[in-house]
Amino acid sequence: MKKNKTQMPLDRIEKEPRTQSFRSVFKWGAIDKYKNPSQGFWKVIKKELGLSDMEAQTQADSGGDRVDNSVKSNISSEDILLFEQIAGKENLFLDTYSRLKYSTGKSMEDILNLREHRIQEICDLVLHPRDKEDIIKIVALCHSKKIPLHVYGGGSSVTLGLACPKGGVTLVMGTHMKRMVAFNETNRTITVESGMMGPVFEDLLNNAPEKLNAKKQYTGGHFPQSFEFSSVGGWVVTLGSGQASSYYGDACDLVISQEYVTPVGTFKTKEFPASATGPKVNDIMKGSEGCFGVLVSVTMKIFPFYPQSAKAFTFMFPNFEKGRDAARHISQAGFGMPAILRLSDPEETDVAMKMYGLEGSIPDRYMGFRGLKPKQRCLLMGQTDGEHRFSKNVYKQIKTICKANQGLSLTGYPMKKWYKGRFSDPYMRDALNDAGVLIDTLEASVSWDHFNDLYSAVRTYIKSYPHMICMTHASHFYAQGTNLYFIFITKMQDIETFRNFQRGIIEKIIQNHGSLSHHHGVGRLMAPMMEQHLGKEQMDVLKALKKHFDPNYIMNPGGLGV
Amino acid sequence: MKKNKTQMPLDRIEKEPRTQSFRSVFKWGAIDKYKNPSQGFWKVIKKELGLSDMEAQTQADSGGDRVDNSVKSNISSEDILLFEQIAGKENLFLDTYSRLKYSTGKSMEDILNLREHRIQEICDLVLHPRDKEDIIKIVALCHSKKIPLHVYGGGSSVTLGLACPKGGVTLVMGTHMKRMVAFNETNRTITVESGMMGPVFEDLLNNAPEKLNAKKQYTGGHFPQSFEFSSVGGWVVTLGSGQASSYYGDACDLVISQEYVTPVGTFKTKEFPASATGPKVNDIMKGSEGCFGVLVSVTMKIFPFYPQSAKAFTFMFPNFEKGRDAARHISQAGFGMPAILRLSDPEETDVAMKMYGLEGSIPDRYMGFRGLKPKQRCLLMGQTDGEHRFSKNVYKQIKTICKANQGLSLTGYPMKKWYKGRFSDPYMRDALNDAGVLIDTLEASVSWDHFNDLYSAVRTYIKSYPHMICMTHASHFYAQGTNLYFIFITKMQDIETFRNFQRGIIEKIIQNHGSLSHHHGVGRLMAPMMEQHLGKEQMDVLKALKKHFDPNYIMNPGGLGV
Repeated sequence: MKKNKTQMPLDRIEKEPRTQSFRSVFKWGAIDKYKNPSQGFWKVIKKELGLSDMEAQTQADSGGDRVDNSVKSNISSEDILLFEQIAGKENLFLDTYSRLKYSTGKSMEDILNLREHRIQEICDLVLHPRDKEDIIKIVALCHSKKIPLHVYGGGSSVTLGLACPKGGVTLVMGTHMKRMVAFNETNRTITVESGMMGPVFEDLLNNAPEKLNAKKQYTGGHFPQSFEFSSVGGWVVTLGSGQASSYYGDACDLVISQEYVTPVGTFKTKEFPASATGPKVNDIMKGSEGCFGVLVSVTMKIFPFYPQSAKAFTFMFPNFEKGRDAARHISQAGFGMPAILRLSDPEETDVAMKMYGLEGSIPDRYMGFRGLKPKQRCLLMGQTDGEHRFSKNVYKQIKTICKANQGLSLTGYPMKKWYKGRFSDPYMRDALNDAGVLIDTLEASVSWDHFNDLYSAVRTYIKSYPHMICMTHASHFYAQGTNLYFIFITKMQDIETFRNFQRGIIEKIIQNHGSLSHHHGVGRLMAPMMEQHLGKEQMDVLKALKKHFDPNYIMNPGGLGV
Repeated sequence: MKKNKTQMPLDRIEKEPRTQSFRSVFKWGAIDKYKNPSQGFWKVIKKELGLSDMEAQTQADSGGDRVDNSVKSNISSEDILLFEQIAGKENLFLDTYSRLKYSTGKSMEDILNLREHRIQEICDLVLHPRDKEDIIKIVALCHSKKIPLHVYGGGSSVTLGLACPKGGVTLVMGTHMKRMVAFNETNRTITVESGMMGPVFEDLLNNAPEKLNAKKQYTGGHFPQSFEFSSVGGWVVTLGSGQASSYYGDACDLVISQEYVTPVGTFKTKEFPASATGPKVNDIMKGSEGCFGVLVSVTMKIFPFYPQSAKAFTFMFPNFEKGRDAARHISQAGFGMPAILRLSDPEETDVAMKMYGLEGSIPDRYMGFRGLKPKQRCLLMGQTDGEHRFSKNVYKQIKTICKANQGLSLTGYPMKKWYKGRFSDPYMRDALNDAGVLIDTLEASVSWDHFNDLYSAVRTYIKSYPHMICMTHASHFYAQGTNLYFIFITKMQDIETFRNFQRGIIEKIIQNHGSLSHHHGVGRLMAPMMEQHLGKEQMDVLKALKKHFDPNYIMNPGGLGV
């Protein structure tokens, strides 16, 4: 992410957003980091979107205004005093900027609004609770006064999960509630407060001998693209999934126990490795997105850290079907899974060839010779992990399966490129948005038998719009299916047009047996479709749980569609 | 299980129980199969229980009476007619024998009652529903008339899970509702009606090329000791666990989707490999033990069937701690898990040495030489499975870990012995009971850090009773912990004394951080302790679900303690 003129096709804005500006709210990640699309990628975008050189140079340093203190808080001064008495004056904020910041995620709609200085659905009051006791009192007060209550973890929601349509209070967990509670090397678990951020969590585990007096190094195994700016609690309540999920499991698989403060009581789920005492409350709470209560701490599985046994691989297949078949065989063979496995469709593959500087290279020419043609060929790449002989065997078997499916090995090189961007690619979005280019994603999980239909239907729909890039990959694999992740790039700027377009994709996903979300969660984006998705009977189950935990409907009202 | 005089220390009853006798209800398994304890085992029992030769020969052919039609049904003749109209006259039974049979499981209390011809807590009416439509109508009728409704799968419950304290209707699922619904080789799933029995399920999968026109052979990977006499639906609603769970997963891990008929509606959970659309209804229903609705069909994961890659191993450790450490290291190393892993405590190890005819053998003498002494040494045995290079690597690594923990390899031989008894051992219980010897079990899951405390506390309590054999093993392994399975053998015969004794064990389990059950489920045995176990707040969650699904409290009333 260093400044590098040859990598700068756009005359990029590389300055920190103004303090308290709209831009400082929507900008991805660290305030002083930026990333431009590579020249190859930018060339594709210009061409596909039909951008003239003039358009392509247009700079929109939008959202640069400061957020004025223009929006009145609807909480009475009496109540404010009560919250102040609980959490302390220094942990209470009423200014519009704070309220906007902590009611905003990273969805395209959030960003479009902020670029145009629109303030919508923000909370009335921001609190930074210091501990569980603060939260117990805050939840009780909100419950008795019927004040809506929301929770802000890392703020990386792309599903409008942080919006506060009814105002109320937002709790910011990352300020104080980010401590380690317990480390248990015998049980291979770590308990942390929910506001601990990904890198802090992983750093503790990787350096466990020094930092935790442990015998070994560990990893949490959870690396979503938002890793650097998401919280452990957020992973759990939104059912996240990391880039290495195929071996380590999705967030829901990693959770041993959770402690919640709800309007009807505080509890910690049992810390058993397994149990047969009825439906598991630990499972019931996962994915509750703040609608049942506030997650205060969570006990996660940890794994031995074997960085030296990682083996990267890349294969090019003549078409998507062959790549998909190879990935399915890998997922179903019973030799264990690679940690990372990613299958790109032809359009994403062609972009990757350009991004990774492979286009026109010797390997590219060799591919041509082998009949691996642009617009058809597909990249499958990944990395094995775990104990080293296990990792080696998985790697070997993957090679065998890929070759049997006409995959050509491109060595581990493209993975090196991928590693560089695995957490930093979201910075590119700001650069593209500044140039009037919109980039967004939608994703679904799908069983293998509906993979083709879902892929074709969504892609056809997206491509029915003119000047649209649609790159698709599958990146989380199971014996029973995978996910499909659609990235679309367009000049579309009008929010209503975008909403309609987005709604159309979601309809196609539902119609073609995709889940509404594989790992982005529900938020207010998917909430209106939840009943259509689950059916009335199953939606009623979630509603019954909501009613039980939150009889006054104060917890993240409207979330989950309950 | 063939008649073999040298294996017959007891002059066993080897005749089929009288038709419609109490004995025919409680006898384990097939009506014409029997199993005696081996001479070695019987010698241990006689000695430890202090049985005189006379006592040891005592035959109690108890429970031999026919079940008279002595218990009036409390369902009105009007209602009976309505049920008859739904399911057909041929599928409706009012006789006491049928009602007793389908209200009885295999708990010690069930057996003690039946041996003394006591009829307790039976249903009023037995129905054998033909299909989902029958069940929808039956549930609706029971709901509107407030008639209790129970479900009978394989009948192997050891937790009083089939008792009908308020009478009502029992549905027998295994008569008609045992069909395959769908086989999906692409998705690696099979959908069956819930009444399909274990061997039918596994046979379909093992012979998939012939029976299902599949490309490959498969396995369901689920082999509880009750495998031959338990149903697929029963595995799911009681959260069962099979002998190969350490690789394949517990029943809850194997379930992709379930279809339920509840008083408030019929639904099938979504068949996604993963999803992030809020708390998963599929998880919420697992373990519901008939308290929320009737499970009519279930979609299970299937696995490639690799019998040729199975590798058996046995190691003897100088003490329980060393064996436990080896098992923990295996479970935490990250190279994958063996399918079967079993660690016996010293008392079980000594019995096993006798049962497997190893006592006094050359290996035994070698063990003595190596300092592996009776009353201290511990067996760890198991089998690797899965794709053959995976299996081979797991096997190799287990060997390395066991040797590093002072384990002495005894080859795979003892596993061969174990295989012979893996499903037939429960037949021995009838033989022992006939000789006035009681054998029963209780089990818990526990995290590694509480393993010692739980083991010691329960064992000390059991051994505080005179003339008590207590054999313990761990047989389901996770990185975070395992289960402890306590088998106790005693002369105790009085049901009240037994109940107090049993309650004492359960208290010790709760006090020492064990779960109330690892895989036996809740039933009416554990229901009264559920609130103490989960705490009020979590119990209230289950109660809220109960109230939602079953507002008239007709579904297995009293089950789960809700």
